[in-house]
Amino acid sequence: MRASSRAAVLEEFGRDVAVREYEVPGPEPGAVVAGVDYGGVCGTDVHLRHGRLPIPVPVVLGHEAVGHVEALGDGVGSDALGGPLAEGDRIGWASSIACNRCYYCLIEQARTLCTDRVVYGINQGADEWPHLSGGWADAIYLRPGTTVVRIPDDVSSEQVIALGCAGPTVAHGMARLGPVPAGGVVAVQGSGPVGLAAAMAARLRGAGRVVVLGAPANRLRLATELGVADAAVDITEVTDPAERLERVLPETEGGQGADVVVEATGDPGAVAEGIDMCRPNGRFLVLGQYTDQGSTPINPHRLVAKQLALTTAWGFDASDYVAFLRSLPELTARFDLARLVSVYPLQRANDALADVAAGTVTKAALAPAH
Amino acid sequence: MRASSRAAVLEEFGRDVAVREYEVPGPEPGAVVAGVDYGGVCGTDVHLRHGRLPIPVPVVLGHEAVGHVEALGDGVGSDALGGPLAEGDRIGWASSIACNRCYYCLIEQARTLCTDRVVYGINQGADEWPHLSGGWADAIYLRPGTTVVRIPDDVSSEQVIALGCAGPTVAHGMARLGPVPAGGVVAVQGSGPVGLAAAMAARLRGAGRVVVLGAPANRLRLATELGVADAAVDITEVTDPAERLERVLPETEGGQGADVVVEATGDPGAVAEGIDMCRPNGRFLVLGQYTDQGSTPINPHRLVAKQLALTTAWGFDASDYVAFLRSLPELTARFDLARLVSVYPLQRANDALADVAAGTVTKAALAPAH
Amino acid sequence: MRASSRAAVLEEFGRDVAVREYEVPGPEPGAVVAGVDYGGVCGTDVHLRHGRLPIPVPVVLGHEAVGHVEALGDGVGSDALGGPLAEGDRIGWASSIACNRCYYCLIEQARTLCTDRVVYGINQGADEWPHLSGGWADAIYLRPGTTVVRIPDDVSSEQVIALGCAGPTVAHGMARLGPVPAGGVVAVQGSGPVGLAAAMAARLRGAGRVVVLGAPANRLRLATELGVADAAVDITEVTDPAERLERVLPETEGGQGADVVVEATGDPGAVAEGIDMCRPNGRFLVLGQYTDQGSTPINPHRLVAKQLALTTAWGFDASDYVAFLRSLPELTARFDLARLVSVYPLQRANDALADVAAGTVTKAALAPAH
Amino acid sequence: MRASSRAAVLEEFGRDVAVREYEVPGPEPGAVVAGVDYGGVCGTDVHLRHGRLPIPVPVVLGHEAVGHVEALGDGVGSDALGGPLAEGDRIGWASSIACNRCYYCLIEQARTLCTDRVVYGINQGADEWPHLSGGWADAIYLRPGTTVVRIPDDVSSEQVIALGCAGPTVAHGMARLGPVPAGGVVAVQGSGPVGLAAAMAARLRGAGRVVVLGAPANRLRLATELGVADAAVDITEVTDPAERLERVLPETEGGQGADVVVEATGDPGAVAEGIDMCRPNGRFLVLGQYTDQGSTPINPHRLVAKQLALTTAWGFDASDYVAFLRSLPELTARFDLARLVSVYPLQRANDALADVAAGTVTKAALAPAH
Repeated sequence: MRASSRAAVLEEFGRDVAVREYEVPGPEPGAVVAGVDYGGVCGTDVHLRHGRLPIPVPVVLGHEAVGHVEALGDGVGSDALGGPLAEGDRIGWASSIACNRCYYCLIEQARTLCTDRVVYGINQGADEWPHLSGGWADAIYLRPGTTVVRIPDDVSSEQVIALGCAGPTVAHGMARLGPVPAGGVVAVQGSGPVGLAAAMAARLRGAGRVVVLGAPANRLRLATELGVADAAVDITEVTDPAERLERVLPETEGGQGADVVVEATGDPGAVAEGIDMCRPNGRFLVLGQYTDQGSTPINPHRLVAKQLALTTAWGFDASDYVAFLRSLPELTARFDLARLVSVYPLQRANDALADVAAGTVTKAALAPAH
Repeated sequence: MRASSRAAVLEEFGRDVAVREYEVPGPEPGAVVAGVDYGGVCGTDVHLRHGRLPIPVPVVLGHEAVGHVEALGDGVGSDALGGPLAEGDRIGWASSIACNRCYYCLIEQARTLCTDRVVYGINQGADEWPHLSGGWADAIYLRPGTTVVRIPDDVSSEQVIALGCAGPTVAHGMARLGPVPAGGVVAVQGSGPVGLAAAMAARLRGAGRVVVLGAPANRLRLATELGVADAAVDITEVTDPAERLERVLPETEGGQGADVVVEATGDPGAVAEGIDMCRPNGRFLVLGQYTDQGSTPINPHRLVAKQLALTTAWGFDASDYVAFLRSLPELTARFDLARLVSVYPLQRANDALADVAAGTVTKAALAPAH
Repeated sequence: MRASSRAAVLEEFGRDVAVREYEVPGPEPGAVVAGVDYGGVCGTDVHLRHGRLPIPVPVVLGHEAVGHVEALGDGVGSDALGGPLAEGDRIGWASSIACNRCYYCLIEQARTLCTDRVVYGINQGADEWPHLSGGWADAIYLRPGTTVVRIPDDVSSEQVIALGCAGPTVAHGMARLGPVPAGGVVAVQGSGPVGLAAAMAARLRGAGRVVVLGAPANRLRLATELGVADAAVDITEVTDPAERLERVLPETEGGQGADVVVEATGDPGAVAEGIDMCRPNGRFLVLGQYTDQGSTPINPHRLVAKQLALTTAWGFDASDYVAFLRSLPELTARFDLARLVSVYPLQRANDALADVAAGTVTKAALAPAH
Repeated sequence: MRASSRAAVLEEFGRDVAVREYEVPGPEPGAVVAGVDYGGVCGTDVHLRHGRLPIPVPVVLGHEAVGHVEALGDGVGSDALGGPLAEGDRIGWASSIACNRCYYCLIEQARTLCTDRVVYGINQGADEWPHLSGGWADAIYLRPGTTVVRIPDDVSSEQVIALGCAGPTVAHGMARLGPVPAGGVVAVQGSGPVGLAAAMAARLRGAGRVVVLGAPANRLRLATELGVADAAVDITEVTDPAERLERVLPETEGGQGADVVVEATGDPGAVAEGIDMCRPNGRFLVLGQYTDQGSTPINPHRLVAKQLALTTAWGFDASDYVAFLRSLPELTARFDLARLVSVYPLQRANDALADVAAGTVTKAALAPAH
């Protein structure tokens, strides 16, 4: 186990992150010290940097990551699936630990609504022990209670990071949505990591035809080339929602609308548009409204007259993370996930953040060893 | 079987209905001629009279009704539940016959979205044979394919009509919502027949606390006296949505919001308000947006951040009607349904319509025999 | 807080329990010391006494209990529902604490399958600190992580203990079963606490007609008098399963069978019988097969030809316990639960066990203060 | 449209089928005359020939078929999905027409339990008009109410017949089962058409690992070569159920058992074995117990202690048939379905029956045009 680790630290909102050095604590019983192979850079990190969420600073960023075991605390001999775990094993871990005491953990069993979660890379200040609580670092200290899963041999670490936290977020959404109709039509609004992950997840569950609406053009092209999307609509090109609807409906059975629509844009206006894309008796999964951007005009009569069901999902918990990891061998067999990833060395974290903010990369990942 | 029957006919939109006389056809095989005991008057009838829906005229109104068998066509020896059926038996019937051929009937099995339904009292013109296709009449001709159910002896015909089409509409909504948490809190927006039926249905399924928001005051008082509502908020008195929320939340566990909210107002603005009344991880059943009143500002972030599920239901089909009838013995044992009903003779159909339009009665019913 | 507490201890399998005295530890942070008002005696306690389950001895028995707060550890200011908690408050608590680390807790979210649960009154030896880990005592030490709920004022402690662990076990079963059809027919096999709790739970959720099959006669009479059962079949009187079926079917709609059957007997043979009591497309909830009594002949063709769904539930977790407590105000408003209870002073624990074994009481409860 | 059609007729139970000639009626309004491209031969046909089911004779056999439009009755301009339909179009059709009047059609909406279905190739006697009511013929008369679907251009008629009625039967089962966990483990008992269709359907819905138990060896080899099965157990080789369990468990995560088990054998004993193959909290879909072969020893404690849910499905209806057809483009993209099919000319129907009875072919299909 290494004695010290570099970490990319957000010290003050609005400022660049800085690389600092921390001592790596030996793992207490139940804990794991992991070397980081890739730390994903997510749109949320851009928001965090700008201070749009109430988090402690300084903080080691990086809520998405994949790595390998450097040291195991006493009592840690197996992963969350019951398989053996040893030094050197490649692992992923759920980004949060729910409190298991609050009403939402214990009674509702909706742990993503836990009011007292530990979230790596977000709400654990770097000034507090064990300091290394984020994935943008050579090493991360995974506390007792972290859900750690060994990565199957046929899945590369790059493939794990390719969808970042979008993968498990979508797994959660799919669990709440229920079955995708085999051979049915799914429309996905948004072509960022959540949109692409939703499109892949829908295909994996048997969707027959997937239409993706989003931008920029190169991301849509990638989605088509990877076999994720059967059809794509570039929203920078087709800017009128009515016209977009006219592009989507002919892709659906009898022009009636999609069996399932997944919203993954973050734009409130997409919700009204998505309602119009659903077929009567359809289902609408809204995944993308993570920040409060205020109200948008929605006509509830259209929901009711088509008898739609609208489902939402907030983040993901340990079971969603595992569900996603479990689906990775199938995903990687079907889609060349590595093509989504742009790798940066740790010291170029600010460049990665800038590229994510600009949308010039699909998925940025810091690779400390590079 | 009587030879002729009076019927209250809407001959022209915007005009009063007029009582006309029609010959009663003998029932063809599979058909039933029913004497009408009560024909309910629904808010929809007010809309129909004003020509707000595209229906044929002249038309015998009356999509809600209860009566008794006057004559059975060949081959009709049992009701939809398999019990024996004989002349004189008191019966109810589903107001619509789905086509069983269209995509929504056959493939989606969502018969309320059937594109080719027969609906008594609405889309069967009085000029067409068999003329008597509405419940505001001495007799109605129930075609082959109508779902006819014998009324249990311990349920009066007045109790059947008390909730009108609101009863089966709510049964449909509850089927789509899934279980009401036993002992949980349900908030109902609206105190018309749908709202009252929803509150009763929630209690019947085990709700522990029901809060009703609506108007006018006498309807809320009735809801409280009948044991339907534990708490009521008069929206003509508390006109500010924020203040209404402050009245509802303290009625819920930990002030967190209702486990289930049911919207039954028809007012688009109620949807945003209902979202705020839901607890995190709650469920929202939107039942009341039957007419298109345009868009309303809704904040999708609030749906997602609370991880809500929003369900809708459009009308009801034969199975919902039967589900409602089946629940009537339990409903009548708990709630004095007859208190909801104001009875008018057939020739006073226009007075009944006026009183429904004015909201001065909870449930108006025409009783041809009175 | 009292300094010491008596406790009824099973010191050796097959022997009588003995009353011993233990010091009451002051509560650590997160813990609660509760005075016990009633400690229920369950059929499982009879099995435990005979050593039929691998538990540590000596052990303070009592996995069902209700009491009041004697002392609150630091940080405990509210109950599991978020309401305030203070000394003297009457409380109930879930009998187990799931580990929140194992595959079944974390990934399947099926905490009743947790492989490492703390279970009060069962798997916490009396020789280990804090010694007072069972409900057959003046006081019990509730560890951090215990789900504690304040009892509503309108529910007596006797009413809480009346269904014992059967109440939350049935709440779990109902959650897995899904909605009971309002006005539908439910057949319950078994008239012990689980059977009675299932019948009540079904009624609470809207069942229209409940048939109970069981014994002895006085328990069935009680079920009928309390309004729990509409019809009862005494299995000691009608000993032939085919004849029992002939008694049950006429109670169901069209003689087709019950919409829902709940098995709560513990007798393997009841499963085949219950399958025959289900209507086509019905649902069968098997709750009673807790001990392994070997195989029984079952005809799978009957399951498939009727297209049945068979669901099971194993024990209950914190959320089921809370769901049950939440439903108590409704249950107590409808059923005189206190009539089920026979109270014994703590020192008569062996008599209570004997009476439970003999089936001469419906629900025995030890009341240390008596 | 041809004037007359040959048909393979079962004239008497236990005898060979004979080729007869019938006049082809012109289609009444709503009806379709279809030329048959392939008529599938199913295990059920073997049973029918031996008189094991109460059907009318003489009868044109063939409940599975695929063909093309020869003549459309008045009013038939579109298929069940709303797409245009014209002479020459290749089509499939649901084998049954539910009555839409009985309790199971109308109220339970479980049309596979309809008590009065028309079933092509099974319950429509050849002596009755329109005579040509089975698929083992040059042409079949599809009555008004038949669910007809146009076959997509990228799916061949041979691919449609490859799974026969097993495809829609499994679609029904999957609908009742609910989602297959993406990346999860599915064990399928049986390697006949239902077993193979179940394995494919599970993969299509995201299963990560599929284990098939069955025989004979060549069928298992085919399943492996087609990518349907990841592992196969030959039950003629491993004849001890305990040993089979030892072969299956290591294929599952942590040796805990399959997330989903599908029974498709028809052997009652497979049910007890399947229960043991399920992981705790798993789901068991029993599809194969179509004939009554009596009781088998089952231990209900094992169901409950593992908290299993057991689901069944009986046959399929129009919506299941459409669901299957919809999934065919995805299925054919992944699996070389045509490899399952052995084609026989119509006059060799008896040879086809003999080969199906002997298990020497996976799927036999009569091709009248050959």
